[in-house]
Amino acid sequence: MNPAKSAALRLRRQLAVANLDAMLVTDLVNVRYLSGFTGSNAALLVRADDDTPVLATDGRYAVQAAAQAPDMELVIERACGPHLAGRAADAGVRRLGFESHVVTIDGHALLARAADGVELVQAAGMVERLREVKDAGEIALLRLACEAADSALRGLVDAGGLRTGRTEKEVARDLESRMLDYNADGVSFETIVAAGPNSAIPHHRPTETVLAPGDFVKIDFGALMAGYHSDMTRTFVLAPLATWQQEIYDVVAAAQRAGREALAPGIHLKDVDKASRQVIEDAGYAENFGHGLGHGVGLQIHEAPGINASSVGTLRAGAVVTVEPGVYLPGRGGVRIEDTLVVGNEDAPTPELLTQFPKELVVID
Amino acid sequence: MNPAKSAALRLRRQLAVANLDAMLVTDLVNVRYLSGFTGSNAALLVRADDDTPVLATDGRYAVQAAAQAPDMELVIERACGPHLAGRAADAGVRRLGFESHVVTIDGHALLARAADGVELVQAAGMVERLREVKDAGEIALLRLACEAADSALRGLVDAGGLRTGRTEKEVARDLESRMLDYNADGVSFETIVAAGPNSAIPHHRPTETVLAPGDFVKIDFGALMAGYHSDMTRTFVLAPLATWQQEIYDVVAAAQRAGREALAPGIHLKDVDKASRQVIEDAGYAENFGHGLGHGVGLQIHEAPGINASSVGTLRAGAVVTVEPGVYLPGRGGVRIEDTLVVGNEDAPTPELLTQFPKELVVID
Repeated sequence: MNPAKSAALRLRRQLAVANLDAMLVTDLVNVRYLSGFTGSNAALLVRADDDTPVLATDGRYAVQAAAQAPDMELVIERACGPHLAGRAADAGVRRLGFESHVVTIDGHALLARAADGVELVQAAGMVERLREVKDAGEIALLRLACEAADSALRGLVDAGGLRTGRTEKEVARDLESRMLDYNADGVSFETIVAAGPNSAIPHHRPTETVLAPGDFVKIDFGALMAGYHSDMTRTFVLAPLATWQQEIYDVVAAAQRAGREALAPGIHLKDVDKASRQVIEDAGYAENFGHGLGHGVGLQIHEAPGINASSVGTLRAGAVVTVEPGVYLPGRGGVRIEDTLVVGNEDAPTPELLTQFPKELVVID
Repeated sequence: MNPAKSAALRLRRQLAVANLDAMLVTDLVNVRYLSGFTGSNAALLVRADDDTPVLATDGRYAVQAAAQAPDMELVIERACGPHLAGRAADAGVRRLGFESHVVTIDGHALLARAADGVELVQAAGMVERLREVKDAGEIALLRLACEAADSALRGLVDAGGLRTGRTEKEVARDLESRMLDYNADGVSFETIVAAGPNSAIPHHRPTETVLAPGDFVKIDFGALMAGYHSDMTRTFVLAPLATWQQEIYDVVAAAQRAGREALAPGIHLKDVDKASRQVIEDAGYAENFGHGLGHGVGLQIHEAPGINASSVGTLRAGAVVTVEPGVYLPGRGGVRIEDTLVVGNEDAPTPELLTQFPKELVVID
């Protein structure tokens, strides 16, 4: 069975749980997950009593949709969502789930008009919850994406690409180009290269700032492979290394290790955050770690589950998540170390590390 | 007065027209347009009786927001929209406009809870309508973006970058790299390079297809400059040139000229489409031009106004739009020629051509 069909089948099981006759999926990433179709205008109708989902898209994508989603019934119609809502009404659907976190007020009015007599039921996050657990094919793509990122960073460092005199923008462009050389389809997100005091800004955009001796250089980046994103952060030092830099690097490295070691299936998400954050708090840097510990990665760079102090729920076997603590000293510099890992299962609880670039502190002369 | 403040002032005038006491802007591009702030979490409250808009964002962006939006009152609060809805209620707002084409069903529930007693009024597209007419600063940025694209394509052609043996992906990457060399902040959208039969697919993604003698090579691409997008398409032939290629190229070039010449302020949008489409229909290719003629360009690559057969309304002085007819022969090849232009005004009705790369057919030996 192809992966998309398998995902659609799992959604049908959820329909029974939620007492829905059908689900109208309009989020494009969710449509892609369930059907394999990657176009920019689409919706999908999954019915409890019919094992063939209906994929709607417009004429631009007729050929592409037939090729990418061979297991779906294909309808060519520009107003995808309302058309499928009407189909649901015609098929006798009484309770139709819709993505209330995605459908706008205007969009909902169009659905209600098209699906006269059908009860539109808020079903936010139902597909995202399925997406949390990756199958073998998804993990293979995430592994490839992480390998491309690893290889690109290795190549950058080995070629002397991290050196004083270069700008943040030059380093970012060099690294991105290397990911494409390793067959990435693109970058996961705009590469962060943050040198010196800029490294204290968690999400710094590369500027013309020139790398200088004594700088931290924090690099957060990823490769895109067939829709799947990698995510990794490494922080380097351009010699000479200062004592305070060694100190916060060691703290972050220890916190990151604690976070990785906490990644067991079934653990409460907030306890993963706590395991790592505690190390930073104990070292006296609680105020310098102002973001969550991690997040799911897959067809989106940020997806469920979030791993932070207010997360609800537990970590599921087969989830792919980041672990990325940081310590940021405003005006001086900061360190973040981030890996992407696959959560293990009861039989093999050790997580698989997808981002394998070493994490020992590298001081570049 | 800075441009963002001027835009916010124009929005306040619209509030009076729509009988609103205030407008809650949650679309991030619209927030950027009105405030100058570029972060990924934000909302803006513009009140009819207060000339200082309130910008909300979260702690990650405190420093950036203060720098980018110095004329706004700044509030740090993660739940930006609901917080500002509450502020509106506290300020005695009775009718609060919201972006019903952007706010989701779940988001609306949060707004309604936060703004107890306030009437939430659907005000879709109000800011987009302001954005249709560009000011001098915006046009200057669009001009720079188009110049970067022109220079990059010139450089690619002069360097022999369009040649048999290269893949579509290689050409796309080369062209994108050249735009960055000309100081683009990025690309407007994923570059389209479509060779041979692929050129008959209007929105083809570059593949490993190798450019071959006799191919059309259709290139649709753009540069990003301080948030503003350029958009241009040119189609080349790799020698030898066939008669059918010359024929459809001439038809598209004539249609494109007719479309540009129709760009007068006040003309009905659908009549611009018609002026160009008629040329293609008269030549017998009506069935081979399946998309609209053009669209607005600015902070988004596609924005108001759309120019197609079902467009409602007229072309406004100072709008920046594309004119991009095409003829596509499935399995053989296709031609599209696209420019970006500024619509003139009554005193100077001739549009300004921003994409100046020549449009004569180039046959590359």
